[in-house]
Amino acid sequence: MISHGCDRLQDMQTFLNITMSLDGFVAGPNQTLEQPLGEGGEDLHEWIVGLESWRRQHGLEGGEATSDGELVRETQERTGAFVMGRRMFSSGEGPWEDDPKANGWWGDDPPFGAPVFVVTHHPRAPLELGTTTFTFVDGVEDAIRQAREAAGDRDVQVSGGASVAQQALNAGLLDELDIHVAPRLLGGGVRLFEEAGPRAIELGRVMASPRVTHLVYAVR
Amino acid sequence: MISHGCDRLQDMQTFLNITMSLDGFVAGPNQTLEQPLGEGGEDLHEWIVGLESWRRQHGLEGGEATSDGELVRETQERTGAFVMGRRMFSSGEGPWEDDPKANGWWGDDPPFGAPVFVVTHHPRAPLELGTTTFTFVDGVEDAIRQAREAAGDRDVQVSGGASVAQQALNAGLLDELDIHVAPRLLGGGVRLFEEAGPRAIELGRVMASPRVTHLVYAVR
Repeated sequence: MISHGCDRLQDMQTFLNITMSLDGFVAGPNQTLEQPLGEGGEDLHEWIVGLESWRRQHGLEGGEATSDGELVRETQERTGAFVMGRRMFSSGEGPWEDDPKANGWWGDDPPFGAPVFVVTHHPRAPLELGTTTFTFVDGVEDAIRQAREAAGDRDVQVSGGASVAQQALNAGLLDELDIHVAPRLLGGGVRLFEEAGPRAIELGRVMASPRVTHLVYAVR
Repeated sequence: MISHGCDRLQDMQTFLNITMSLDGFVAGPNQTLEQPLGEGGEDLHEWIVGLESWRRQHGLEGGEATSDGELVRETQERTGAFVMGRRMFSSGEGPWEDDPKANGWWGDDPPFGAPVFVVTHHPRAPLELGTTTFTFVDGVEDAIRQAREAAGDRDVQVSGGASVAQQALNAGLLDELDIHVAPRLLGGGVRLFEEAGPRAIELGRVMASPRVTHLVYAVR
C-alpha cells in the first residue's frame, strides 16, 4: 500500500465511493436478477470481499487485515448516511409491487449501519430492516440534502450506481470522488462516466495494492 | 512519487504508452487541425510538457527534474521503435496528397530518436526527417512486427491513438499498458477503451504525483 497527499480534503463531505474497471465500467454487460452486476461485474469487487473489515460489516467472520481493509474501515467510519439509486437498491424499476427485490439485496439486516436514501420516482414509506432505515426520495438533490441532515458531522457516501453518480456530479453535489480502479477490462457494460460533463478535479490521494488502485479526487 | 511493485514485467515488450482522463478520454470533443486533441485535450498533457526530460527530447531547454520526469526518461530509453496511427501522425485520413500535415506534427527534426511505424491503408515510401524515419504500414499487426525487428533488444512503444491501441489490444499484441491518468474529466471526446474487448490484466506498478497517476498493467 502506498499513499500520496493528504488524508482528508475537508470536513463534512459528500463523496462518491465506487469501484470501476480500468476501461471505466461499474457493471458488466447483460445485467440480470441472477447476475445483477452483469458479466464480469462481480470480479470488480474481488479486492474487497475477502477483507476482514468488509466481512465484519456484513456479519461474516475471518478475512484479511490489509491496508485495503484499513481504507474500507475508514470509509465505513466516516459515513453518516448513504445515497444510492433504485437500480443499486433492487435492480428494479417501475412500481414497487412489481419489484421482486423490493426490500433490497441485503436480507433482514442490511450491513449499512447508517440511514440509506434511495433515489426513485416511485413514492414509498420508509423501510426499516434490522438496524437500517431506507428512505425513498424523488431526486438526487433532495436525497443528498436529506442524507446531509441525517449524517450529522459525518460524511455522505454516494454509493452508485452510475446514473446517480452522474446526476450528483453534474449537479455539483459531490465534493470528492473515491474511485477504486480494479485491474480488469470488462469490454462493455455500465460506464461510470457515460454522461458526466467536463469538470475540474484535483488529485488528493493515491493508494495501491496489487488488487486495486484507490484514487481520491477533490471536485472543484 | 510513490511506487508499487516490480519495475520491469518482462524483457522486450510491446507496451502502450498513453495519457487518458479519469473519464477515459485520450482526446476531447471537436478535434480540428487547430486543436488536434479537441477541447480540453491539451490539458491531459500538462503533466509532461514542463518536464526537463520531455523538453530535452523536444529540443527545448529548462524544465523540472521530478520523479514524473524520471519515468519519462526511462520510457524514452526503453523504446527502440514506435507504432502510431495515421490520425496521431497527421490528424488526416484518405490520400496523402490531400493531407495538410502529411509530414506529421513535429517539424524538420521529430523528437523520437527511434524509427516510427505509422499504421495506414494509404501506401507511401518511408519518410526521413532529421534523425527519424517514418515507415508507413498497412495494419497494426504488420506495424508491430516491423517495429519489433527494428527495436532490437529494446521495447516497442505503441503511442496511440485510441484506434490503434484498441486494435493492438484486441489482437493480443500488447504485453503491457502504461496508462497515465490525468486528473481531468473531459466529458466527451475519444475514448481509449471504446471498442476493447474483455481481457485479463494484472497491476504491475503504480506511481503518482499531484499531476498524474501512472498505472502499469501486464496483459495476460
